[in-house]
Amino acid sequence: MGPMTYNAVETITRKRDGGRLADDQIRWLIDAYTRGDIADEQMSACAMAVFFQGLDDAELACWTRAMLDSGKRMDLSTTSRVAVDKHSTGGVGDKITLPLAPLVAACGAAVPQLSGRGLGHTGGTLDKMESIPGWQAYLSDAALLTQLETVGAAICAAGADLAPADKKLYALRDVTGTIEAIPLIASSIMSKKIAEGAAGLVLDVKVGTGAFMKTPERARELASRMVGLGQAAGVRTVALLTDMNTPLGNAIGNALEVGEALEVLAGGGPDDVVELTVTLAREMVTLAGLDIDPADVLASGRAMDVWRRMVEAQGGDPAAPLPQARFAEVVTAESSGYLTRLDALGVGVASWRLGAGRARQGEAVQAGAGIMLHAKPGDAVKSCEPLMTLYTDTPERMEDALAALDGAVGIGPEPPTRTPLVLDRIEP
Amino acid sequence: MGPMTYNAVETITRKRDGGRLADDQIRWLIDAYTRGDIADEQMSACAMAVFFQGLDDAELACWTRAMLDSGKRMDLSTTSRVAVDKHSTGGVGDKITLPLAPLVAACGAAVPQLSGRGLGHTGGTLDKMESIPGWQAYLSDAALLTQLETVGAAICAAGADLAPADKKLYALRDVTGTIEAIPLIASSIMSKKIAEGAAGLVLDVKVGTGAFMKTPERARELASRMVGLGQAAGVRTVALLTDMNTPLGNAIGNALEVGEALEVLAGGGPDDVVELTVTLAREMVTLAGLDIDPADVLASGRAMDVWRRMVEAQGGDPAAPLPQARFAEVVTAESSGYLTRLDALGVGVASWRLGAGRARQGEAVQAGAGIMLHAKPGDAVKSCEPLMTLYTDTPERMEDALAALDGAVGIGPEPPTRTPLVLDRIEP
Repeated sequence: MGPMTYNAVETITRKRDGGRLADDQIRWLIDAYTRGDIADEQMSACAMAVFFQGLDDAELACWTRAMLDSGKRMDLSTTSRVAVDKHSTGGVGDKITLPLAPLVAACGAAVPQLSGRGLGHTGGTLDKMESIPGWQAYLSDAALLTQLETVGAAICAAGADLAPADKKLYALRDVTGTIEAIPLIASSIMSKKIAEGAAGLVLDVKVGTGAFMKTPERARELASRMVGLGQAAGVRTVALLTDMNTPLGNAIGNALEVGEALEVLAGGGPDDVVELTVTLAREMVTLAGLDIDPADVLASGRAMDVWRRMVEAQGGDPAAPLPQARFAEVVTAESSGYLTRLDALGVGVASWRLGAGRARQGEAVQAGAGIMLHAKPGDAVKSCEPLMTLYTDTPERMEDALAALDGAVGIGPEPPTRTPLVLDRIEP
Repeated sequence: MGPMTYNAVETITRKRDGGRLADDQIRWLIDAYTRGDIADEQMSACAMAVFFQGLDDAELACWTRAMLDSGKRMDLSTTSRVAVDKHSTGGVGDKITLPLAPLVAACGAAVPQLSGRGLGHTGGTLDKMESIPGWQAYLSDAALLTQLETVGAAICAAGADLAPADKKLYALRDVTGTIEAIPLIASSIMSKKIAEGAAGLVLDVKVGTGAFMKTPERARELASRMVGLGQAAGVRTVALLTDMNTPLGNAIGNALEVGEALEVLAGGGPDDVVELTVTLAREMVTLAGLDIDPADVLASGRAMDVWRRMVEAQGGDPAAPLPQARFAEVVTAESSGYLTRLDALGVGVASWRLGAGRARQGEAVQAGAGIMLHAKPGDAVKSCEPLMTLYTDTPERMEDALAALDGAVGIGPEPPTRTPLVLDRIEP
């Protein structure tokens, strides 16, 4: 028997007026919306009511479960390795998945990294990987399982059959100003992540100007609600709150970030990228029950071996040169002193405008577009010396990109106080 | 040049986050929605944001003006009489328009009473009038102007060309749980009423269980915002807050209410209906600048003369017998004492279920269905003696109607404290 029938307007007004929705009512709502029995204009009003009135823990668990149940849940039990997964809420220069997945696989876990494309000023993991010549994002379930067994890691597109209710609801929220509701963000992320079937999950919740969550309070709320949802669904879940006021690393843009990931896998790379990769890898390895230090594995070069096999398994050529943009422009320091601020949002929007990101789903992105930073906050800079280089295939975009950097750079007489990269850790 | 272009999502999130919308932005929003450039799911989310964040006076005036400007504004300047109008926010047994329009016309004003049909537990004026054999709701503008000149009053359907933006937005709000936002109620009513072109407007804002506004605070807020909108648009506007915890008069239902209106026009009728008719008539006559007491005009029989001419002018036969329901059932008192309570909502829902109202637009209503009350709060009642009679053409509806009356009747040893019918008066 299907779920019992409720009335859409009564459901909306109940939430609007601060009431609780019954479990049956939430299941009915999600199911009826997915089937098309509840209209978009009703669901968007309901989402806005949730923005203002929230969902309590039991409502949220039920909502997430209903979205999960709208599709299939992957079965990774045939894999001999323990599967662990990572999700980042999105930031500027956040290429961590690229070195992290092969590193954790090299430690002995299976890492099914089902990813998406970018929208707006934060890049998407698939867009980055697709700058590798020949690499294919789509894997069948059977191919994914085989790759997890033989290589240990796969970065690939999430199938449409994982949480289809979320796919429909997210597209609606995107055009109705209802993205920012924390329970809806939490259920959207967690319904997909739980559907991926991993035994453990590490959440990297970004906080700062370049992140979706602008304040530690909101980031912490999102993190703890997601950790609660993971635990309730039987997925061991831990969240880190990490800084996103400054871009991660020096490279922002698809191929540029792949290049930086390769540096990290080769034992080099910027300190912050290495620190976050190893920190997240330790959490994942612990969740997988493995007794090994990822820093040692990274130093051994075994993560790079896994990377090459992972890229090759999906048709990519790990030795092929990465695409480069046709035009470059250098931005120099306006004065001498210390770089005090390099705003992640400004840099992210600039990179987006250069062609690294898309304004709407389905648009193509430029593989070579983006920004290379030559200084990070705390570094000494000299007037007229390079701060960053902007890359694009479409030079008419330079002006808009430079405008996004207006006010994004701060230079002062004293170095800024160092802020930690990892701000907090949320466990069940 | 048309209004400048804004972004729908930015407009929604601005209101969601408590910001003000610019005048241009509001005009763009209403215009783009009416043209279909803003989708229903965006407008419903925006309406829900307005429910929570409100509209300030300037935003509301602009919103209302934009809805008014979406259609035409009637020109009543060719009429030699001053046109005054009345609007009730809707109640149970509220047939006041029927005796009021001819009474105020008999006092010398023009009364263009453009009305609608009922939805839910409150009846609609057109549904009541249509129980008169032969009567037609639709008048051309030319016929309306002629009738206002020759008869002085017309009760007719509002044309689709008055505030079409409101028509579209109201239908959307109706299915998305966004009806109850006070600024949206105020702009919906006032855009239509201002479009009718009267020089003066009296608002009867109902408050109580059977009304849309359940508390005096909300009713007062709605009333003062509507009075402000009327004045800003050059329409002299006054509002009365009137009690709707108990049905008005003794008749609830279409033909039953016409019958009661005829009693009032003949010089009889229930005290509360007479009191409210004369009180509202005095306000309208004052707004029209006429020096005459409607009570005297009612006693003279001239209002009944206007009624007959008004009905005849629209094809109705004022002498024809009114339709009667085929089935009746009497509800008796369960104990002796005083009737302390007769809940307007319970009685309204019962009458609706008997067939007097409709659940969705376009449904037919029964002319004869409804309820006749044999006692009102304050009256002495005796156990097993009749309290009310229920009428319907479809006796299978009796049980549901009786269920709606469950708990609606209170009988006690002492008469209740008398509460005034007119609770407050709001003027500019």
